[in-house]
Amino acid sequence: MRIEKKVFDQEKNTSLTAYIQEVGGEYRHVTKRPGILIIPGGAYQYCSDREGEPVAFEYLKAGFQAFILRYTVRTEWPEPLEDYEKAMEIIRDRADEWNLYVDKIAVIGFSAGGHLAACAVTMARNKPAAGILGYAAIDCRDEILKNAPNALEYVDGKTAPCFLFATRTDQLVSCRNTIDFSRALAEHGVCFESHIYSHGPHGLVTGDQSIEDSAIPRPESYHHWVQDSVNFLRDIFGHFEKGGMSAPRVRAHDTGDDEDYLSAHCTIGKLLSSQEGKSAMEDIMPGLRDGYEGWKRKMNEKYHTNLDIGQPIESYVLSTLWNMLGRDSSMLMELQKRLEKIPNDQSL
Amino acid sequence: MRIEKKVFDQEKNTSLTAYIQEVGGEYRHVTKRPGILIIPGGAYQYCSDREGEPVAFEYLKAGFQAFILRYTVRTEWPEPLEDYEKAMEIIRDRADEWNLYVDKIAVIGFSAGGHLAACAVTMARNKPAAGILGYAAIDCRDEILKNAPNALEYVDGKTAPCFLFATRTDQLVSCRNTIDFSRALAEHGVCFESHIYSHGPHGLVTGDQSIEDSAIPRPESYHHWVQDSVNFLRDIFGHFEKGGMSAPRVRAHDTGDDEDYLSAHCTIGKLLSSQEGKSAMEDIMPGLRDGYEGWKRKMNEKYHTNLDIGQPIESYVLSTLWNMLGRDSSMLMELQKRLEKIPNDQSL
Amino acid sequence: MRIEKKVFDQEKNTSLTAYIQEVGGEYRHVTKRPGILIIPGGAYQYCSDREGEPVAFEYLKAGFQAFILRYTVRTEWPEPLEDYEKAMEIIRDRADEWNLYVDKIAVIGFSAGGHLAACAVTMARNKPAAGILGYAAIDCRDEILKNAPNALEYVDGKTAPCFLFATRTDQLVSCRNTIDFSRALAEHGVCFESHIYSHGPHGLVTGDQSIEDSAIPRPESYHHWVQDSVNFLRDIFGHFEKGGMSAPRVRAHDTGDDEDYLSAHCTIGKLLSSQEGKSAMEDIMPGLRDGYEGWKRKMNEKYHTNLDIGQPIESYVLSTLWNMLGRDSSMLMELQKRLEKIPNDQSL
Amino acid sequence: MRIEKKVFDQEKNTSLTAYIQEVGGEYRHVTKRPGILIIPGGAYQYCSDREGEPVAFEYLKAGFQAFILRYTVRTEWPEPLEDYEKAMEIIRDRADEWNLYVDKIAVIGFSAGGHLAACAVTMARNKPAAGILGYAAIDCRDEILKNAPNALEYVDGKTAPCFLFATRTDQLVSCRNTIDFSRALAEHGVCFESHIYSHGPHGLVTGDQSIEDSAIPRPESYHHWVQDSVNFLRDIFGHFEKGGMSAPRVRAHDTGDDEDYLSAHCTIGKLLSSQEGKSAMEDIMPGLRDGYEGWKRKMNEKYHTNLDIGQPIESYVLSTLWNMLGRDSSMLMELQKRLEKIPNDQSL
Repeated sequence: MRIEKKVFDQEKNTSLTAYIQEVGGEYRHVTKRPGILIIPGGAYQYCSDREGEPVAFEYLKAGFQAFILRYTVRTEWPEPLEDYEKAMEIIRDRADEWNLYVDKIAVIGFSAGGHLAACAVTMARNKPAAGILGYAAIDCRDEILKNAPNALEYVDGKTAPCFLFATRTDQLVSCRNTIDFSRALAEHGVCFESHIYSHGPHGLVTGDQSIEDSAIPRPESYHHWVQDSVNFLRDIFGHFEKGGMSAPRVRAHDTGDDEDYLSAHCTIGKLLSSQEGKSAMEDIMPGLRDGYEGWKRKMNEKYHTNLDIGQPIESYVLSTLWNMLGRDSSMLMELQKRLEKIPNDQSL
Repeated sequence: MRIEKKVFDQEKNTSLTAYIQEVGGEYRHVTKRPGILIIPGGAYQYCSDREGEPVAFEYLKAGFQAFILRYTVRTEWPEPLEDYEKAMEIIRDRADEWNLYVDKIAVIGFSAGGHLAACAVTMARNKPAAGILGYAAIDCRDEILKNAPNALEYVDGKTAPCFLFATRTDQLVSCRNTIDFSRALAEHGVCFESHIYSHGPHGLVTGDQSIEDSAIPRPESYHHWVQDSVNFLRDIFGHFEKGGMSAPRVRAHDTGDDEDYLSAHCTIGKLLSSQEGKSAMEDIMPGLRDGYEGWKRKMNEKYHTNLDIGQPIESYVLSTLWNMLGRDSSMLMELQKRLEKIPNDQSL
Repeated sequence: MRIEKKVFDQEKNTSLTAYIQEVGGEYRHVTKRPGILIIPGGAYQYCSDREGEPVAFEYLKAGFQAFILRYTVRTEWPEPLEDYEKAMEIIRDRADEWNLYVDKIAVIGFSAGGHLAACAVTMARNKPAAGILGYAAIDCRDEILKNAPNALEYVDGKTAPCFLFATRTDQLVSCRNTIDFSRALAEHGVCFESHIYSHGPHGLVTGDQSIEDSAIPRPESYHHWVQDSVNFLRDIFGHFEKGGMSAPRVRAHDTGDDEDYLSAHCTIGKLLSSQEGKSAMEDIMPGLRDGYEGWKRKMNEKYHTNLDIGQPIESYVLSTLWNMLGRDSSMLMELQKRLEKIPNDQSL
Repeated sequence: MRIEKKVFDQEKNTSLTAYIQEVGGEYRHVTKRPGILIIPGGAYQYCSDREGEPVAFEYLKAGFQAFILRYTVRTEWPEPLEDYEKAMEIIRDRADEWNLYVDKIAVIGFSAGGHLAACAVTMARNKPAAGILGYAAIDCRDEILKNAPNALEYVDGKTAPCFLFATRTDQLVSCRNTIDFSRALAEHGVCFESHIYSHGPHGLVTGDQSIEDSAIPRPESYHHWVQDSVNFLRDIFGHFEKGGMSAPRVRAHDTGDDEDYLSAHCTIGKLLSSQEGKSAMEDIMPGLRDGYEGWKRKMNEKYHTNLDIGQPIESYVLSTLWNMLGRDSSMLMELQKRLEKIPNDQSL
């Protein structure tokens, strides 16, 4: 491993530190690695050391390249976000040199750093592929940092998938931040996992006794969040296997409605809303030409399905029609090919 | 262990089955046991076997007495709740015979059984000491069971502490049930723990492969909920130790404002709102007689505290004044003695 | 679940208690279950309750049928073993009724019960398919029970695979019992797993606080033996999957040299030692007719292998020749077919 | 963290790399850290990268300072041991600078590195405070490295406490190495913990999928060795707590018979074998003057104890006499004070 530090601003003490592991050689099946950018907390007054390296070790041992961001504090929004953007741009620019999967870079933030991470997953130009939000001050606002936005208000169908955890009795940052953000992700069909532990003070980091005294009460299960978050990232990113990374086990978004091009992962409603999408579907399912409602009724009656305008056509076809029609997947592949050429007009 | 089955109604196939472990003898330090009443799911159409005994084994091995309720299905509300009440009454009546801590009986329910458990913790005459809600259909209503209430609407400061878990991609019962119930518990200062796993279908029970095929995708961490829920109950109920059970590590409610009598666990606001509570406080903290706001300002200035009307007086005294005043706990005990004779007028 | 108790002798208080779970119905993929016979300890003076039901719950929850044996105490060898034999005969006789895989019945014994279990895996008429030996008094002899054998002396290539655990500072039964038994199993190519924890007194059972006070010092990892033993049994027996049990992941014995019939799992040395085995091999590998040593040299040179008379022919063929020869497995299957008709003359 | 590399010999590619974490500051209760020196394997032909940094991360995250040794390969014994000695001397010399507890430095070695670690714990001038031996080639000899000793032959009462693990089906290094070393440690009263997993090939390191492909079969429990070894070190070294490290929970050696000075932790037999020790004991327990055997008989009768010449006098006094005599610990402390001035003549 080598440690490289890129100082952004000497005076402001802002920097990006990279912890870069080897690939290849004896790591036979590892040619690149996923990455994680760690954003410590500190109430936008300082960057906490305890939420830096001890966190990096956890993901390094899971095979990730790790990065720690020291961002501007005692400032105004959006300066910290701009530090994040700069960090992410450096990481992506140097992805080859640092043996990184450029599309598998997560961000993890704690407390105020959790606010910054929540802004990264919702509104950044350089959105991460996943976010981990630890006792995150998502609604952090003017009292803490001038002009800081409430990240909750920016959740939409393009928000990156998130793993969230908090303790219920956190007196500094209410666990409602975590609850409300989870709810918003659920509303928008964004993949997430959420753990709220019954008790424990703010700032437990990983719960390891080398960071936090064993005398501080918290549930025995608190430290589970670390391995659980690694599992979450592996489900989203895939895992090391011979010849690269395995396919993800979970999709980042429930539908393809917010992607740049249409796909069989779009909902029926979405596809019907554009002329080209509608035509593509009608060619495959000619009955649709007589109107969606009638077709739906007929299909539901004939096949005892429960067709719903909010379902991705893919899941509908895969789980229902495809079964009925003798499992000929060529229809779906044909549809997919046509759809992925059609730009997604997101105003529809 | 002995298994006893009490049939409620032969025709309706309703019953309470008790799994009663030994105490004493070689179990030197076990004179009584906590209990758990298991409420299987089944969409109020049947009672699922898979959500019965496999769940009982988990809590039996943790030292609990276990009970399985088979309640009336294909009926109207509140018949299932009445079955629950009957079960709880039997359990409490026979607590001595069954070597039970009568104040340490939890309930666990899955899916529709989770709806019934959610009603138990909020509105039952025989409220359990804690509830575990597994992928619970908390908003279950008319479509499923005629007249069934949305348990969410009944959450208040007297709701029993709850452990909740669900999978995000549950297509039968939305994880929003779990999120919204958690939020309501947070609002009302009720202790809870909540785990929402990133993916997995409805009805995974404990996730053990003897119940659910390993081919069904779910996160590796899913089965953690079982041990986590045991830890939760131990934090609320205490744990076996020489001579009985240890003191709980977590309170069921953040304040004593909803208890039958006042206590030092009530908030300052609550105590000030009743004449008797106010007098008791003024006798201990004479400065209060000149008005709360002025007193608060003085205290905060003098002791650099952050006194708040929503804090339990106990935590305030313990964490702040008590420290300042040289740790003489007699003051607090004196206050507690006076307060616990004053009935809590909950209309205030 | 139902509990059935078969009393062997009222006066001696000996019995077999069966804990029988349901199969089929909602347990869609469970048509039969593996079983485990639990033998409590008690220095052959009594049968410990603590090493009975709390252990049963652990394996019940893993999907097993569980049985507890109360055997004769304050007696002479082989009376306890005869109780074991009787129990095993009943279990096998009633395998259909009790929905048991008759070839997947393990035994678990603690302390003196571990001695009895060690005798079961080595010398019983009704050998179990696997054994778990907990702080087992394997060398238990006359002082404890008249005429009791030292099970260590009976380990051979037919001994059942074993999972062993102990604490190093056990003052009643030395952990050397566990070490020496492990070594003997290694010598004879019998599958085993062994865990010796750094400290802890005799008799911790599962380590759960409902059995043993948390004040008793032991390593945090002590309780891992329970899940580890379940994993061990699953590797040996296979695990529940659609349509039955999956194939075992580990063989009970490193070679087939002690089976009743020859097989491709026998070592080259074993096969060469019988005329019929030799012929079968020569037909498949004609070069062998000119003598083993020359053939071996040629093969090793040609294929850069490391052919060894102690290797199962199967592993040799699979890992080496088969690769070389273009992966045509028909040769191996043909050989297997011929071999499995040849009785194994174990005097060779 | 900073990484410092000290090259021993450029040509031989030997070096010590130090991974040094911060102390103090936000790590309020961490003023120094324990350390671990990692010795990779590689059949004394090379130093394996996979057994270096991925291992360091595990102990860094547990709060340790970590060191990786690259030792001379393709050489003769004792050159690798001399590299070890040099590394340990550097580490101890720079203990202050590197914020190390100089008496809490462990060593971990894998495969051939496990041989070197086994030599370190038995015969090195600079013995570590504990050793972790992973699938260690303890009997490694001439074939692998000229003149290499079999570490097994050097185990004695001064050997450092060891944590050992291996897989049973390791085809390169037999698990008997681990079994036999465990047995020798048990013989000599040296603290150890040992885990032999039922199957798995040589060289699995931590079992993490970023190091070893998930396709390689091994028990689910294999990776437990990592956390178990951390727990072992914490039991021996103590754990971080306010103001330093807590007291160890386990002694490195069962008795003080091999220490440089006598102590109340010596066995009765040891103390009686030296004139000064005998006098010290007789002054405290005057009855001893009439001869050990008679005194023992009297004590055993009077106090129903089971006095044994092999027990440390401390444990005897603490568990028995001390109880009887009303728990006056002054007697023991007085004895301890006298004993610790008496050099231990180890020829006795």
